[in-house]
Amino acid sequence: MAELDTGLPSVRQVQTYIQEKKGVEVKLTTGDVLAGQILWQDPSYLCLMNGQQERFFLSRGAVVYIKA
Amino acid sequence: MAELDTGLPSVRQVQTYIQEKKGVEVKLTTGDVLAGQILWQDPSYLCLMNGQQERFFLSRGAVVYIKA
Amino acid sequence: MAELDTGLPSVRQVQTYIQEKKGVEVKLTTGDVLAGQILWQDPSYLCLMNGQQERFFLSRGAVVYIKA
Amino acid sequence: MAELDTGLPSVRQVQTYIQEKKGVEVKLTTGDVLAGQILWQDPSYLCLMNGQQERFFLSRGAVVYIKA
Amino acid sequence: MAELDTGLPSVRQVQTYIQEKKGVEVKLTTGDVLAGQILWQDPSYLCLMNGQQERFFLSRGAVVYIKA
Amino acid sequence: MAELDTGLPSVRQVQTYIQEKKGVEVKLTTGDVLAGQILWQDPSYLCLMNGQQERFFLSRGAVVYIKA
Repeated sequence: MAELDTGLPSVRQVQTYIQEKKGVEVKLTTGDVLAGQILWQDPSYLCLMNGQQERFFLSRGAVVYIKA
Repeated sequence: MAELDTGLPSVRQVQTYIQEKKGVEVKLTTGDVLAGQILWQDPSYLCLMNGQQERFFLSRGAVVYIKA
Repeated sequence: MAELDTGLPSVRQVQTYIQEKKGVEVKLTTGDVLAGQILWQDPSYLCLMNGQQERFFLSRGAVVYIKA
Repeated sequence: MAELDTGLPSVRQVQTYIQEKKGVEVKLTTGDVLAGQILWQDPSYLCLMNGQQERFFLSRGAVVYIKA
Repeated sequence: MAELDTGLPSVRQVQTYIQEKKGVEVKLTTGDVLAGQILWQDPSYLCLMNGQQERFFLSRGAVVYIKA
Repeated sequence: MAELDTGLPSVRQVQTYIQEKKGVEVKLTTGDVLAGQILWQDPSYLCLMNGQQERFFLSRGAVVYIKA
């Protein structure tokens, strides 16, 4: 199984946001900006839940930035 | 054969949607949003069938997010 | 030689379209939609012939979806 | 050295165009279409010369299609 | 752990900017330009802090250029 | 360290431009065109200096073409 590389600062930082249930903004390659909480991450996707409890599986390749 | 990594949360989650025949929305890098059911997934493509029974083989690289 | 992974459902499905000479639509990252028959596939490109007998070598990375 | 995979139909086809000095159109991810002759190819780039003898090193990742 | 390849000029150059707390502009694939300081880098992301102390985790794949 | 593959024609060609301090145009995925001299290259980035002595670290993935 492709492991999530928890040695990477970026992976650890996102893990911290997940544990702290921190509100973030994620900008996507289409220009969309989604606001909400990251529920989990794996090597290919991030799962974000927005204010309306909708879940989005975001392809890592489509994430431009995560703003905290 | 490139195996689908069923250890990944994202792969398992999509597998659940397939089994539950759950309606999803898929946003693509072109800005298109396709609604329908995911029929199958492999490491390179997702197969989605829309309300008109049309089948779309979506390149994983062109998927921005899957919304459930 | 990078082999085409005929174990993958997506590769087998495209192979079936090639053998059946099935008409497909291919949406590209530029928003173009090309209609025609897929003549062959390899790990990097698909070859599509349109109604005017013009041949297009489509980079797999530029394919958003194949609609049958 | 990353070898060009001459076992692939797409690599052989481009090689044929190079030898035949065949006129092609190349569509790029920016929507640009360049017309000219492919002078050489390697795993990362194609070199195309247009009608004004200008040389373009095209990133393979930016090529949407090659039309012959 | 995927190591940051400190043998590469680009990695060393960014490391220098981090140590010098140098102001940079980063252009993203969406056309956004972010100005600020790079706080850290790993193989997948750059962390940039702008003038309002906001932190952006920039996917390396979404970075078009870094201007110093 | 990820080596620059000097066996590739494209790498050697860029190396020649660097040594000759040749003026080039680089088109980026955002549609920007930067003119200047390539100062160095590594497997991930090209460093270009424009007429105003500004340095741009260009992600190879964001380069559409280099025109000489």
